[in-house]
Amino acid sequence: MGFLKVVSLEEALKVIESFGIEAKVEEVPVEEALGRVLAEDVRAPIDVPPFDRATVDGYALRAEDTFMASESEPVRLKLVGQINAGDIPEIKLEKGQTVGISTGAPLPLGADAVAMLEEVEVEGDEVLIYKPYYPQAGVMKAGTDIAKGAVVLKAPKRLTFKDTALLSALGYEKVRVFRRPRVAVISTGNEIILPGEELRPGSIYDINGRAITDAIRELGGEAFFLGIARDDEDSLREKLLEGLKYDMVILSGGASAGVRDLTSSIIEELGKVHVHGIAIQPGKPTIIGQVDGKPIFGLPGYPTSCLTNFTLLVAPLLRRLLGLSGEKRSVRKRLAHKVFSVKGRRQFLPVRVEGEEAVPILKGSGAITSFVDADGFIEVPETVEILEEGEEVEVFLF
Amino acid sequence: MGFLKVVSLEEALKVIESFGIEAKVEEVPVEEALGRVLAEDVRAPIDVPPFDRATVDGYALRAEDTFMASESEPVRLKLVGQINAGDIPEIKLEKGQTVGISTGAPLPLGADAVAMLEEVEVEGDEVLIYKPYYPQAGVMKAGTDIAKGAVVLKAPKRLTFKDTALLSALGYEKVRVFRRPRVAVISTGNEIILPGEELRPGSIYDINGRAITDAIRELGGEAFFLGIARDDEDSLREKLLEGLKYDMVILSGGASAGVRDLTSSIIEELGKVHVHGIAIQPGKPTIIGQVDGKPIFGLPGYPTSCLTNFTLLVAPLLRRLLGLSGEKRSVRKRLAHKVFSVKGRRQFLPVRVEGEEAVPILKGSGAITSFVDADGFIEVPETVEILEEGEEVEVFLF
Repeated sequence: MGFLKVVSLEEALKVIESFGIEAKVEEVPVEEALGRVLAEDVRAPIDVPPFDRATVDGYALRAEDTFMASESEPVRLKLVGQINAGDIPEIKLEKGQTVGISTGAPLPLGADAVAMLEEVEVEGDEVLIYKPYYPQAGVMKAGTDIAKGAVVLKAPKRLTFKDTALLSALGYEKVRVFRRPRVAVISTGNEIILPGEELRPGSIYDINGRAITDAIRELGGEAFFLGIARDDEDSLREKLLEGLKYDMVILSGGASAGVRDLTSSIIEELGKVHVHGIAIQPGKPTIIGQVDGKPIFGLPGYPTSCLTNFTLLVAPLLRRLLGLSGEKRSVRKRLAHKVFSVKGRRQFLPVRVEGEEAVPILKGSGAITSFVDADGFIEVPETVEILEEGEEVEVFLF
Repeated sequence: MGFLKVVSLEEALKVIESFGIEAKVEEVPVEEALGRVLAEDVRAPIDVPPFDRATVDGYALRAEDTFMASESEPVRLKLVGQINAGDIPEIKLEKGQTVGISTGAPLPLGADAVAMLEEVEVEGDEVLIYKPYYPQAGVMKAGTDIAKGAVVLKAPKRLTFKDTALLSALGYEKVRVFRRPRVAVISTGNEIILPGEELRPGSIYDINGRAITDAIRELGGEAFFLGIARDDEDSLREKLLEGLKYDMVILSGGASAGVRDLTSSIIEELGKVHVHGIAIQPGKPTIIGQVDGKPIFGLPGYPTSCLTNFTLLVAPLLRRLLGLSGEKRSVRKRLAHKVFSVKGRRQFLPVRVEGEEAVPILKGSGAITSFVDADGFIEVPETVEILEEGEEVEVFLF
């Protein structure tokens, strides 16, 4: 077979690192940026508000004109116009003058306060002011909300509706985000059929293709399920070549050793197999190769094993490309019951998280119900045979 | 103006309820179902696995043939064939016979156990068995993973990658999910401009249109931002009529009272205004109407007020249509510092959540920074003037 390149998990991760695949940045319209990861800090290109604006409906005035006003001796100001929201203020307010103003409208030159509609009386072209207004009453000064040049969003950050709204409020049409890796997903195995096909004796419906495709989408990547490659050279080569149109290819293995060797030999023919087998349980059948600079992952066929190796090997790469390396992906829980392992074997056990407990799932990685129940997995190091009930464990989440 | 239909929050919610808008169900391909909400329980239409399958690479045999086997006196079985994954098993195993079998392949008739490759020796057409195998060793029986007819997914539930994978594994091509409400979003106000437009004196960039559009998308709905309606009858009517092509229309108000009355009079012209003003702070300018059976919401113009009223009035309706009414949308926290309110006014105050504390945001609902900082809001009832530091409060999350 010739491809026995069994390495430790750490060595496998170094191999992936050595591919030198860098996160890429692209510019997208803000209206399509929801959920994308910001690649560069954003500064305010303008003051917000961009001008001194009225925060109430009322009358713009010069505060100093009102200092002597009282309930019994109102000050009378001359009404010289009206400014509505959206108007360009062309009036300059002289001593003793006022203009009607609506909420959100820009203050005219000379004005520095706004009297609320409810607090004044209007008599003809005069407005009666019954109390003194301090400068800035009823006014939001330009730049007091956000000052031009201030950093308003720090990268990396997955953009929420509040972030896209903020970008819009600052006048940004576009924003620089990490490019989503485009991943081809292929299932392999003569026994695997697609939903909609008739269930022949000996065949089972695909689970890994859908699982990996949608797991990548949940993470924020773009995934394309190319269907199923049969266990023959031509079918596998054809699918793999189709997959190489994308940034990365993930094959989920046929169940048997023969298919894995076939996959390995086709990758070797087109490029290079760097890893064939990782010294963890499950992970022996895992293949890491590279063709035309693009990483190819061959994952085990059993659903839980497939997902565990995806989480250990592929997800960290995808998260790095998506700008999300910093996200914490594990939680500390207490083991719900004792677990036996085999000394000398580094094992990753699927667990379900229930409140503060991690409940080991012992149905076997071939069972679909294990896959469905598991929230993540725990590591049992080579040197450990027994993990005790109540022991603190780190759960790596899918 | 004639539309003074100020009601309590509870009455406003009843008005929306009375519109009788029901959640709708649609069938979508499983490959597009990620993130959608399951509308009906899903049962397994088949046994999983659909046949007795080998869980290891090795030799299928009749367990009873091996009961006398030992390290020193191996049992010799006659090798009569090979079954690979995906093969249709046409062999029937007779006493003393065995067939090579690969992981995932169906057991031949007569066989009830599989000896692992590593545990046997092959001599010509004989396989030497060194230990007894119990029935079902190395075998997963049909239906032991999932039995036909079992409920595997309970509605309502937002479908994760594990759920879509499970649906695929059960052979489902399509799944019934709640139809996503299609919502038109319109910003109003002469002062509002779109990103990309030049900032004239007196104008500000849209924030509410983007915020509401993307908040609906985060929730799982489909939202369409139709841009900005000017403060004139024709512009408002035109946008509103465009919005009526969708299931629901949300307008975020111009800042001034004039625009709100204009909005109200156009809704009244086309249909009916049910609510104009809600007896909460903020919420006075909120409009609820109906045209052609479709709800129209006019929300306040200030960003935090707009979002608060969206959360109180629109989000519950959207969640119901999306099948997500059951989702908990509030958390209990302790107030970080004292808050003063006005007796007789039912107030909703924006707060930021920091660990176990709710920190009130007092910058004013006109500030964009209030909007950005706030995670939700707390209610201060009419009868309360002061909320003390450390008091437990319920935070309604945006």
